[in-house]
Amino acid sequence: MRVYNFCAGPSTLPEQALIKVQKELLSYNGCGMSVMELSHRGAQYDEIHHQAEAMLRQLLNVPDDYYVLFLQGGASMQFEAIPMNLLGKNNKADYILTGNWAEKSYKEAKKYGDIVAAGSSKDANYTFIPEYSFREDIAYGAICSNNTIYGTKFSQKVNCAAPLVADMSSCILSEQINVSDYSVIYAGAQKNMSCAGLTVVIVKKELVDNDYTLPFCPTMLKWKTQAEKESLYNTPPTFAIYVLNEVLKWLDAFGGIKAMEAQNKEQAAKLYNAIDNSTFYSNPVRVCDRSIMNVVFTTPNAELDAKFVKESTAKGLMFLKGHKNVGGLRASIYNAMPNEGITALIEFMQKFENENK
Amino acid sequence: MRVYNFCAGPSTLPEQALIKVQKELLSYNGCGMSVMELSHRGAQYDEIHHQAEAMLRQLLNVPDDYYVLFLQGGASMQFEAIPMNLLGKNNKADYILTGNWAEKSYKEAKKYGDIVAAGSSKDANYTFIPEYSFREDIAYGAICSNNTIYGTKFSQKVNCAAPLVADMSSCILSEQINVSDYSVIYAGAQKNMSCAGLTVVIVKKELVDNDYTLPFCPTMLKWKTQAEKESLYNTPPTFAIYVLNEVLKWLDAFGGIKAMEAQNKEQAAKLYNAIDNSTFYSNPVRVCDRSIMNVVFTTPNAELDAKFVKESTAKGLMFLKGHKNVGGLRASIYNAMPNEGITALIEFMQKFENENK
Repeated sequence: MRVYNFCAGPSTLPEQALIKVQKELLSYNGCGMSVMELSHRGAQYDEIHHQAEAMLRQLLNVPDDYYVLFLQGGASMQFEAIPMNLLGKNNKADYILTGNWAEKSYKEAKKYGDIVAAGSSKDANYTFIPEYSFREDIAYGAICSNNTIYGTKFSQKVNCAAPLVADMSSCILSEQINVSDYSVIYAGAQKNMSCAGLTVVIVKKELVDNDYTLPFCPTMLKWKTQAEKESLYNTPPTFAIYVLNEVLKWLDAFGGIKAMEAQNKEQAAKLYNAIDNSTFYSNPVRVCDRSIMNVVFTTPNAELDAKFVKESTAKGLMFLKGHKNVGGLRASIYNAMPNEGITALIEFMQKFENENK
Repeated sequence: MRVYNFCAGPSTLPEQALIKVQKELLSYNGCGMSVMELSHRGAQYDEIHHQAEAMLRQLLNVPDDYYVLFLQGGASMQFEAIPMNLLGKNNKADYILTGNWAEKSYKEAKKYGDIVAAGSSKDANYTFIPEYSFREDIAYGAICSNNTIYGTKFSQKVNCAAPLVADMSSCILSEQINVSDYSVIYAGAQKNMSCAGLTVVIVKKELVDNDYTLPFCPTMLKWKTQAEKESLYNTPPTFAIYVLNEVLKWLDAFGGIKAMEAQNKEQAAKLYNAIDNSTFYSNPVRVCDRSIMNVVFTTPNAELDAKFVKESTAKGLMFLKGHKNVGGLRASIYNAMPNEGITALIEFMQKFENENK
């Protein structure tokens, strides 16, 4: 029996996609070989690779003047690849600091150029998206669109005259975006896209073709290398790209990002309502900045938080413990979370409140 | 029905391991979640992660003064990570050039220091392992133990006073080695270990702890970062590590590397015998340097090679086309190739010879 998995990542995947993967695990499309066993230079894998790219382009409405790259190393590898690919033009970049991952990307970038914080809500424990201002002559401005640990997100279009770079690891495909508002979108796949081990980078072609890489940028980290070879410079993470393709097919059948966004917003609203309508649970985030993917909350004290985790786990509501940096509780409700999971969680919350208030 | 897959990589995996993966794809160990959906910080994945490391250490008899790292980016990423991690001590290193991958690693390293070829068989199209001599004061000497494209391997212990670095992507776990003969062993997983998207690095602790990294080495490429966090600095490729663990369990049940080596040598001998005893097929490699993983051969001409590929594919003998750099045919017979696959290939070869000579 499947449980409801509220893990922040790797996280729950669409059951339909998993069933398909399971069915053909030993023989992809009846070919007598597992997807894992297929040559990355062969026709069968080639179709998967390019179909996944085409599906992603279609679902996100990616303009033709963007490359879609399938890379490895997670968003963390891109924290370094981004400055190394972009600072050759002008060694300045500004970062908005909205949480751990934004801070990490900022610290890595500082090794490579003149990097400044355009805004920060650190003093308020990142409970809101701060005011910010970007310098005029920067090579790029960087944000983390959704902050997994703190449960915040950018809800307004970011005002940045320079190319805007966004880490969308925990919100890609969760709501409609205008790709043209960004010059670089990057995301680890292990939340809304696939299993761990794949990183998607969507980048404006002119930024890549003009080659603003720093001289010591490793070949493997150069977007230009990867773009020229259609992410087949060396063996890509073929299985993770195949799973991505199956997840995208599921999302397409679901009705695409528009339908997904509606479900995500409804699920998040239900959870926030349950928290707001209770005197037992609370959420520290400024309402207009609340994430629709990661809902953080607390009970009245740490002991009850721990009890909540223990008892919810026993009921098949998994990984509800908050990140160690903030404690408390967190429900990550990515695209694949079914409505039944939200209902079950809210019922459990109400029962737990009644038993412990 | 499963076919016999002679692909050079990604390549055939043990059917038993795939069946296990398939069985628990939607619910690992009855937990109600796929391995792909497990938190990399949770107890279930933690057990897989450390069991895979322990199994690899046991099977390869890795001494305690070595780290075993689970990384991403393939051997190609290590082509750059190696010089960036090791050239801080002394900026000199020597490479033996035995094929495309050795050449690629050599070219990448040249960006970072004083790198010299210790030997090369390029003029003879890499059909043998060349004589070599390493400079005395190098930080390390580098080899590619098995050359997938050209079907050669190092059969003798390499004479190198400096730390020896070996790319074992296409031969790791195929025969017994003395890990202490090497300071760094690295390998993409997609041949003898797992699906694509995982790279294993086995490295002497003192080389890592002394931190000979170049100043601009990205954090993610630093072995020290990864060693200190037990390859959990960021989300590792959890599914590929899980598949590795299942493949290692299969290898252990098979009788370990000793039993595997015996089967590999017997399979390779049968194939080489079939080639050598025929006037139709030929293999260009010096006999003492022949690989036991990749058997390259040709028919009398390129048209017959193409016909061979077409007809063998139709008979369920897959991916026998040689690499584009050398043409001809290639049978990659990694650990998971069953004896029945060798028999079927040899029968096909004899039939094809009779029909076309």
